[in-house]
Amino acid sequence: MIKKVLIANRGEIAVRIIRACKELNIETVAVFSEADSDSLHVRLADEAYCIGPTPSSQSYLNFTNIMSVATLTEVDAIHPGYGFLAENAAFAEICAECNITFIGPSPSAINQMGTKDVARTTMKNAGVPVVPGSEGIIDSVEDGVKIAEEIGYPVIIKATAGGGGKGIRVARDETELRKGISVTQKEAKANFGNPGVYLEKYIEDFRHVEIQVVGDTHGNVIHLGERDCTIQRRLQKLVEETPSPALTKEKRQEMGEAAVRAAQAVDYVGAGTIEFIYDHRNGNFYFMEMNTRIQVEHPVTEMVTGIDLIKEQILVASGKKLSYTQDEVTFNGWSIECRINAENPDKNFMPSPGKITMYLPPGGYGVRVDSAAFPGYVIPPYYDSMIAKLITHGETREEAIAKMKRALSEFVIEGVDTTIPFHLRLFNHEVFVGGDFNTKFLEQYSLKPATEE
Amino acid sequence: MIKKVLIANRGEIAVRIIRACKELNIETVAVFSEADSDSLHVRLADEAYCIGPTPSSQSYLNFTNIMSVATLTEVDAIHPGYGFLAENAAFAEICAECNITFIGPSPSAINQMGTKDVARTTMKNAGVPVVPGSEGIIDSVEDGVKIAEEIGYPVIIKATAGGGGKGIRVARDETELRKGISVTQKEAKANFGNPGVYLEKYIEDFRHVEIQVVGDTHGNVIHLGERDCTIQRRLQKLVEETPSPALTKEKRQEMGEAAVRAAQAVDYVGAGTIEFIYDHRNGNFYFMEMNTRIQVEHPVTEMVTGIDLIKEQILVASGKKLSYTQDEVTFNGWSIECRINAENPDKNFMPSPGKITMYLPPGGYGVRVDSAAFPGYVIPPYYDSMIAKLITHGETREEAIAKMKRALSEFVIEGVDTTIPFHLRLFNHEVFVGGDFNTKFLEQYSLKPATEE
Repeated sequence: MIKKVLIANRGEIAVRIIRACKELNIETVAVFSEADSDSLHVRLADEAYCIGPTPSSQSYLNFTNIMSVATLTEVDAIHPGYGFLAENAAFAEICAECNITFIGPSPSAINQMGTKDVARTTMKNAGVPVVPGSEGIIDSVEDGVKIAEEIGYPVIIKATAGGGGKGIRVARDETELRKGISVTQKEAKANFGNPGVYLEKYIEDFRHVEIQVVGDTHGNVIHLGERDCTIQRRLQKLVEETPSPALTKEKRQEMGEAAVRAAQAVDYVGAGTIEFIYDHRNGNFYFMEMNTRIQVEHPVTEMVTGIDLIKEQILVASGKKLSYTQDEVTFNGWSIECRINAENPDKNFMPSPGKITMYLPPGGYGVRVDSAAFPGYVIPPYYDSMIAKLITHGETREEAIAKMKRALSEFVIEGVDTTIPFHLRLFNHEVFVGGDFNTKFLEQYSLKPATEE
Repeated sequence: MIKKVLIANRGEIAVRIIRACKELNIETVAVFSEADSDSLHVRLADEAYCIGPTPSSQSYLNFTNIMSVATLTEVDAIHPGYGFLAENAAFAEICAECNITFIGPSPSAINQMGTKDVARTTMKNAGVPVVPGSEGIIDSVEDGVKIAEEIGYPVIIKATAGGGGKGIRVARDETELRKGISVTQKEAKANFGNPGVYLEKYIEDFRHVEIQVVGDTHGNVIHLGERDCTIQRRLQKLVEETPSPALTKEKRQEMGEAAVRAAQAVDYVGAGTIEFIYDHRNGNFYFMEMNTRIQVEHPVTEMVTGIDLIKEQILVASGKKLSYTQDEVTFNGWSIECRINAENPDKNFMPSPGKITMYLPPGGYGVRVDSAAFPGYVIPPYYDSMIAKLITHGETREEAIAKMKRALSEFVIEGVDTTIPFHLRLFNHEVFVGGDFNTKFLEQYSLKPATEE
């Protein structure tokens, strides 16, 4: 069993991992950048070491410094949290070379899922639905037109070397397609040095539904149900819930089984998430990507299953079997998470770093707060702007929403702007409450303050 | 359905009730004494009114002022919380006369359970075990000796007009008994004007185990399992947990059924608690008393049953049926509550009122905090010294304890002394962890800081 863990992260997830370790009687080593010396994760860990200057490349992404601390403090394992080194296969390999357990999947699983085309092919072979499209690069414009007719318009043209929203173009008919292919090819050649493009059916009206999976080193993989992360702003999730208001019991099972096949296909060990495009009007789902790490929104799954995902990660990394079989997993009630960010929702979510002069998280029954904030904490401008995750749990969606509204209204954070007013408007919005919406919710509904309307 | 509630209380329980009301979309009216104008319950309620000077008799126990606010604000109901007016039959009657729902049992149920002898007889008639003893007042010393021989020594001599620990004497043999009866009679006559004494078997090695019940106006009564409140200091509960480490499944059912009979015997409506003396060495339990109100320690029951007791109180007070049948009640995991008081555990628990200069409650998975404290809050010296209830929930007792230890170690309260260090010592004490102890735990084990030993 792992006895001492270095947490290679900061903020609430570092605090979350330290808490799980303490409860498992595992010693903790925190690391921090020069900007984070006064952080909660530093205060809560048994030991804490500075690993470099503020820029992440020199501290939280600095392999050498992190491995030096790990070696000197004689930890058995490193937990990468999310972001930073969490999906870095090279780092996982270095851990293995240093005989330190990387709490996460194998470098090979990280690699297979981190490469778009490889992941798509692996999933297809494993019988996991992928968005209909060309088999790899299209040979010619004529080839593209033929494929588009087969899969139906609209289609999306993607540069195989692209990414991050670049090298992507939608075509709604043949004219747009013909033009789009040649333009995208030219752009791709110019920008990425590779003109290859492929086609996928463009699904406009969809929900983001993802399945949590956990695997152990004994070949067991189970799923822990879905999370619905449809409320997004520029691909950033803002609110997550489980169960999904859009899923039937049958669809949940089908999706869960597909996710287990996906994880099995890469011999997955640890906690991971298969993200799906859920074409909720037609009941079809398609593999989007797999995140080979713990996710920000993991608490909602914990609230309804009663399974501590961080502890489970640590246990399977220690070589233990999963604590549950698929049949033993039960789902109780409804859970929602809000990401409370230091941003001004009325100024286009402009970041608002600075000193939190007053801080009082809400409490009481069915309310959980995962945060690294405290009165007097200075939010540095260098990292993400999340202050707290506010999670509620109720018997029904209605109750979870009611709890969220009362918890949001109690939450005191002074000194910086926060997204609390935005969330209050969202949870009072009849379409959100109704449950029938897609990823364009925030484009469709402005959620401006009532007084401005 | 109730639409607007006056909360006739202060502190964490007022906050707890306001939270439940908000989640049920019920308007709230807070009342406060002059010492409490800056309190959290005042800030969180929709409306708040001062009801008088600091002494409770002039504010929180001031019928006239409370009923004036209730009438002026046109509330449908009054929730008394615990303490103050919660078990005051006269107040419940006044509410009824003013056509305002008292969220609690009928005046008659309050009265029947509030009178020691009546309650004992009612329970005996309902088939609820009571401590063996004389049937009412003993006629003579000889009568007492005969009864003591029947029930076995040691016995306890109680003045029928006594109370609060006064007019009570233990006798371990006939000599002590003969002397004790006449001394207690004389004292009782002098102090209470009534020389009547009765005898009960004195159970020394027992646990305090209580059963939560809920009843509705349709004649349904169910129980929600037990709470073990064996860790006490001078009859003040410090830690409560459910399930009890000392109960078998069969004993739990037996005790639960007895509690339901007890509640049914007085046509009980609302949330109530039957407290038992649990003679854990022999598996016998005896009725101690019924508390006809919500209790401080109700959250642990909520954590394992998933039933919101305050909401249930409000729903049945509205005339609705209980949300659950007995068969639908399930028990998941283990929950423990610590009362964090502003007291110095190393100075004989001397109260430590004053300003909380820094406050940061613990958070994360399986941790609940019910509190009215905040950074800058000044704890007045006039009321009870509780700052917060810290509640944890885990799959097992071991996990609930581990969570409590890490939550206690995270809890930041500066400016006043608190019982946090005491609780940390308790949760690290092998006898507590072992689970086999009785109400004399704190007399047997000093729980002084390690450095003083």
